[in-house]
Amino acid sequence: MNNLPRFSNNLILSGILMLLVLFPLLNCSNGSKNDKNSKFGIVIHGGGGARDRIEFEKNPELERAYKNKLKEALSEGYEILKAGGDGIDAVEAAIRIMEDSPLFNAGKGASFTNAGTNELDASIMNGKTLRAGAIGAVKFVKNPISLARLILEKTPHVLVVGEGALAFAKEQGVELRPADYFYTERQWNSLQRRLKEDVPYGGKLKEKQKENNEDKFGTVGAAALDKNGNLAAGTSTGGRVKKRPGRVGDSPIIGASTYANNQTCAVSTTGLGEYHMVLLTSKEISALIAYKGMALKEAVDYALMKELVELGGAGGAIAINKNGDVAMSFTGEGMYRGFILDDGKAVVKIYKE
Amino acid sequence: MNNLPRFSNNLILSGILMLLVLFPLLNCSNGSKNDKNSKFGIVIHGGGGARDRIEFEKNPELERAYKNKLKEALSEGYEILKAGGDGIDAVEAAIRIMEDSPLFNAGKGASFTNAGTNELDASIMNGKTLRAGAIGAVKFVKNPISLARLILEKTPHVLVVGEGALAFAKEQGVELRPADYFYTERQWNSLQRRLKEDVPYGGKLKEKQKENNEDKFGTVGAAALDKNGNLAAGTSTGGRVKKRPGRVGDSPIIGASTYANNQTCAVSTTGLGEYHMVLLTSKEISALIAYKGMALKEAVDYALMKELVELGGAGGAIAINKNGDVAMSFTGEGMYRGFILDDGKAVVKIYKE
Repeated sequence: MNNLPRFSNNLILSGILMLLVLFPLLNCSNGSKNDKNSKFGIVIHGGGGARDRIEFEKNPELERAYKNKLKEALSEGYEILKAGGDGIDAVEAAIRIMEDSPLFNAGKGASFTNAGTNELDASIMNGKTLRAGAIGAVKFVKNPISLARLILEKTPHVLVVGEGALAFAKEQGVELRPADYFYTERQWNSLQRRLKEDVPYGGKLKEKQKENNEDKFGTVGAAALDKNGNLAAGTSTGGRVKKRPGRVGDSPIIGASTYANNQTCAVSTTGLGEYHMVLLTSKEISALIAYKGMALKEAVDYALMKELVELGGAGGAIAINKNGDVAMSFTGEGMYRGFILDDGKAVVKIYKE
Repeated sequence: MNNLPRFSNNLILSGILMLLVLFPLLNCSNGSKNDKNSKFGIVIHGGGGARDRIEFEKNPELERAYKNKLKEALSEGYEILKAGGDGIDAVEAAIRIMEDSPLFNAGKGASFTNAGTNELDASIMNGKTLRAGAIGAVKFVKNPISLARLILEKTPHVLVVGEGALAFAKEQGVELRPADYFYTERQWNSLQRRLKEDVPYGGKLKEKQKENNEDKFGTVGAAALDKNGNLAAGTSTGGRVKKRPGRVGDSPIIGASTYANNQTCAVSTTGLGEYHMVLLTSKEISALIAYKGMALKEAVDYALMKELVELGGAGGAIAINKNGDVAMSFTGEGMYRGFILDDGKAVVKIYKE
């Protein structure tokens, strides 16, 4: 009997302590984990400009397909990280899943150029060594992100494009696919719609804003923190619909879309590439953290919601830092996105909340 | 008689005032004009890794040829600026002069790929609008900087590469030249030397440092301030010797080599492109000015002498800001460089001083 009240007091004290410890976790803001320290984690996007909510209301299976594919990509990355693997391996694996799916504008499902071809861009960066690899305007490569990884590992270059990149792919024996592998009805129809439009090809940058969301976005990307505290990021895309053959967007440009630096953050962006290319969005986010002392989410929001928007651009970004804070921001109605931290719980979202 | 002493006093006072006004100008440090405000000006480089002093001692006419060509490029830019022209016009004009000369690794005189071809990279940026144009891995174009300018003006893209860029050049009717136009004995011999070397193609990034200076550098670039206070910058190159066809270096990457922003500075870099591409050197210089409050010269020196060197890189940069301050810094023995401000006096240099 004497012991019971003492036990109860301990229970109450423990409860208060637990609440104090848990409070910051319960206080997380929308999509941000600024107050949680995760030993490892991965955050991904499947592009901004998500299909209209109405389309998903008519076709809930399609929405489920997107969410399941995002979860599959997250899970693939998570297993690598949980087993102590490198962040860059997790990034590559997660992106390959999305490249192999026709749902996203990367690999299979890539957009078409104005010549009806598919030209792929991708890049990957190691935040520990600051080494990077990228390929631009390359045809027939099943997994552009893996070719970018080979540029990083097997050449002294950062970016190789076009026929030269395809020749390198053949030397390295990477998987190639014939043109029809990359065909999807959705992307073909998107090109046909755009070809009928009045906007002349040589239109001004601002005219791109007239394009509908689906035509603009769809790039995939990932950023990871591994158990050794190393950051990595990668991005892969078919680029904008009706682009001129040879056009290279932001996805293979280090500092525009992909950037990883153990001292600051790992980032991948999506959106109107040409704006990210002159803002240097992912490098800008890193600079805001390094030189302005901004928190991760604050830096991502500042670069996107203020700087990118003021420039006339639109898009989104996902990011992670060495504390396992994640940020997912976008200017439009939606962005396919998700993250998984060391608790193993995948969170996937499409629209604003 | 009464007037004479008064006149003398005025003369002495005027002299003191003039000295006070002129003192900051006389106090300029090496290559920097931090203390002078110029209404307009242009600063250029013809690449780092200048030929050995010994070669010039044997062949003083060659040294004169370099200095004269730099002066010609500066003069071309100066006349445009003096007449109230746009900074971007001055940048393009100055770079065209160097592209047309076999002395520099850009346009005529470009380096050779490992396949014995010449593939050209260039970019140009408007610091007022933050719009940019760039081309990569393109053959046969006499003046790559002008094709980059057309990408800026006539397309919604920033970067177009390879065959797609050549097709665009043909559409626009820009001057093309057959392969033999780009041939120079110097660059051909440089390729032959490199092909005999043991270093395997797929060598690590660090191995590039074993290359001799002449093989590494030679890019040309310009940065200008016009009378309207607008900044612009541009860069053009044949790239590194024995590069893989399709390799794109830093020269056409906005934020790596070329960057211009009226709020901060206009920059063009030269050196080992792959390092500038992951440091984002020209964007970094802008960020150091914007977010760390560094002066122009301080930011350029910090990015090159500390950050680039710590990364294992080597190279140089020229820059100008809205006050007409200019900076010219490099990590090696020399960099072909020069500037001209509103006083119309061209200053050209090759080695460290």
